[in-house]
Amino acid sequence: MTYERKNIAAMEAYVPGEQIDSSEIIKLNTNENPYPPSPCVSEALASADVPRLRQYPSPTAKSLQKTIAAKHNLDPENVLVTNGGDELLRMAITTFVDPGEKVAIARPTYTLYQVLADAHDAQMEVFELDSNWNLPGNFGDLLNDAEAKLAFLVNPHAPSGTLLPVEEISAVAETFRGVLLLDEAYVDFVEPDAAYSSEALLEKHENLLILRSFSKGYSLAGLRMGYGLGNTSLINPLMKTKDSYNTDLIAQSLADAAIRDQDYASDTWNRVRAERRTVSAALRGMGFVLPESQTNFVLATVPYGQKAESLYHALKSRNILVRYFKNENRLEDKLRITIGTPKENQTLINALNDLLD
Amino acid sequence: MTYERKNIAAMEAYVPGEQIDSSEIIKLNTNENPYPPSPCVSEALASADVPRLRQYPSPTAKSLQKTIAAKHNLDPENVLVTNGGDELLRMAITTFVDPGEKVAIARPTYTLYQVLADAHDAQMEVFELDSNWNLPGNFGDLLNDAEAKLAFLVNPHAPSGTLLPVEEISAVAETFRGVLLLDEAYVDFVEPDAAYSSEALLEKHENLLILRSFSKGYSLAGLRMGYGLGNTSLINPLMKTKDSYNTDLIAQSLADAAIRDQDYASDTWNRVRAERRTVSAALRGMGFVLPESQTNFVLATVPYGQKAESLYHALKSRNILVRYFKNENRLEDKLRITIGTPKENQTLINALNDLLD
Repeated sequence: MTYERKNIAAMEAYVPGEQIDSSEIIKLNTNENPYPPSPCVSEALASADVPRLRQYPSPTAKSLQKTIAAKHNLDPENVLVTNGGDELLRMAITTFVDPGEKVAIARPTYTLYQVLADAHDAQMEVFELDSNWNLPGNFGDLLNDAEAKLAFLVNPHAPSGTLLPVEEISAVAETFRGVLLLDEAYVDFVEPDAAYSSEALLEKHENLLILRSFSKGYSLAGLRMGYGLGNTSLINPLMKTKDSYNTDLIAQSLADAAIRDQDYASDTWNRVRAERRTVSAALRGMGFVLPESQTNFVLATVPYGQKAESLYHALKSRNILVRYFKNENRLEDKLRITIGTPKENQTLINALNDLLD
Repeated sequence: MTYERKNIAAMEAYVPGEQIDSSEIIKLNTNENPYPPSPCVSEALASADVPRLRQYPSPTAKSLQKTIAAKHNLDPENVLVTNGGDELLRMAITTFVDPGEKVAIARPTYTLYQVLADAHDAQMEVFELDSNWNLPGNFGDLLNDAEAKLAFLVNPHAPSGTLLPVEEISAVAETFRGVLLLDEAYVDFVEPDAAYSSEALLEKHENLLILRSFSKGYSLAGLRMGYGLGNTSLINPLMKTKDSYNTDLIAQSLADAAIRDQDYASDTWNRVRAERRTVSAALRGMGFVLPESQTNFVLATVPYGQKAESLYHALKSRNILVRYFKNENRLEDKLRITIGTPKENQTLINALNDLLD
């Protein structure tokens, strides 16, 4: 017998990127930071108060909430700490969208959005990005015409790595009558000279909800910590619907240690940016076509005459995992490659040189 | 402007028990285990692989899932590891109940059930327990008549501490056509001679979902770990709707260490049981009336002529926190008191002796 809701019986589950636990494998498929977390994270772990674990943690991660607020020049009431950014995505749908109402995305994008909409039985309105991965003109109007209650924008964009200017986001938020969730999971890797910063938009746009993650920028994908930034008109209802104790004591304290050590984190971002330039140049030299990435990955169209799927398999047989989006419209001829350590990247480049020879 | 769904604007948020961070306070209000976690938890923490945190954890907590399955003589596919038991409660509602459909509870019970139903816009069908906190006769039929899709039963019961025999649960599951979620958050404190064990019911009842928690029995409320046990007809759809990486690497490993050290955990349960007898006897000696508790708390009706709310405040002014359910029907004359360490319990008893003198 089946007990689940019809929409859940009908939906496809999210398929996480392959995780192969082997030191032999060079993992360039799930956009993890190639560097370990800050030494301050180890220190925080070493001084964790284990006996205190018998008691419930702060329901709102109060101390971390303050640290995050200070970093962004906001008040703690504008910060919602979540069990990974993914929790915020789910909560945004279940809090702001009635089943049957519409969520909007601009494709290609993070496939989890569709899964979360399906699980809630929300409808999905899909817009297509143009050939340069830019939004359709008057995107805000299009969202209103579709009667979307919530729209997901990921910036810098995944899987292309490109960056929308903050003015364009502001224009969408200004026009759109629903909630605009700006997913900035990869924002830490943006070049500083792009001078990208979206927090100030919160003063103007009550409907803007910014997502940040500790997974990539702070090398803490294993810890499941993220947060939302927004006005209280969005944060307060999310607080009502979140699981009562949604993050744990240790994760709260480790995330706090990580975000306080901006010097270390910035250093990893700089290294990733430098390697991004190296990898991009090498790939272009081999005939790959790729847009300028502002993230810790590149989306590379394979050279003329090559097949992305074959290259994916050939790399895998050499213990190098990259991401191939099988059956994803407009991505069949592309590989998404995470920026690794210099050594990992060189191994990748050598392998590709060899395979394309 | 408001952006949230109407049901969310209208709902009341869950109010967690008071958490006052002070070593001066004797906290007997949130049913935490008075003893620290197993030394194996500290060891697991000390050997945590911090560099590995840069990578995503196992989406299903695979290793812990196996440990749990082995403990319960089940297969890993019958185990869903969750971010606290509360996550399983929410997921059960969002997976098995369409908005507008019915969830059922037998009151008094954990107030979070109502909050979660409200957040999902599910209707709540409320049955009243009798004066001995027993279920109404033919509870399964009543659930069917109400067309409930999901029913929550907490056993041993909170807030009374009483235990339903496993046969009664089996009878409800047999009759009920919806999903029966058996919330066993406190089951570790049941007297061994009660020979209570519900896992075997899973062989007979496809619609039974058992909730377990690390919070109380393993002294890990701060870690947010729990799990569900059930047949794949329930576990598989829950797996589809859970957040893609819902528990973190460190919590997975610490929970694993805790559950493997059954000797230590059992020792804390025995201590709590012994103190439960002492506290119960002392309270009865002072004129409190309380049912036999099989949990780590007691629900005590205050002596004739006393007011529970006044006693609550008087204890609080002496730095002893107990739980008073203000405005809760049938609980106004009662205090819920967590079993603490022998010293904490003696302080409580002395204070009550003094106040009732």
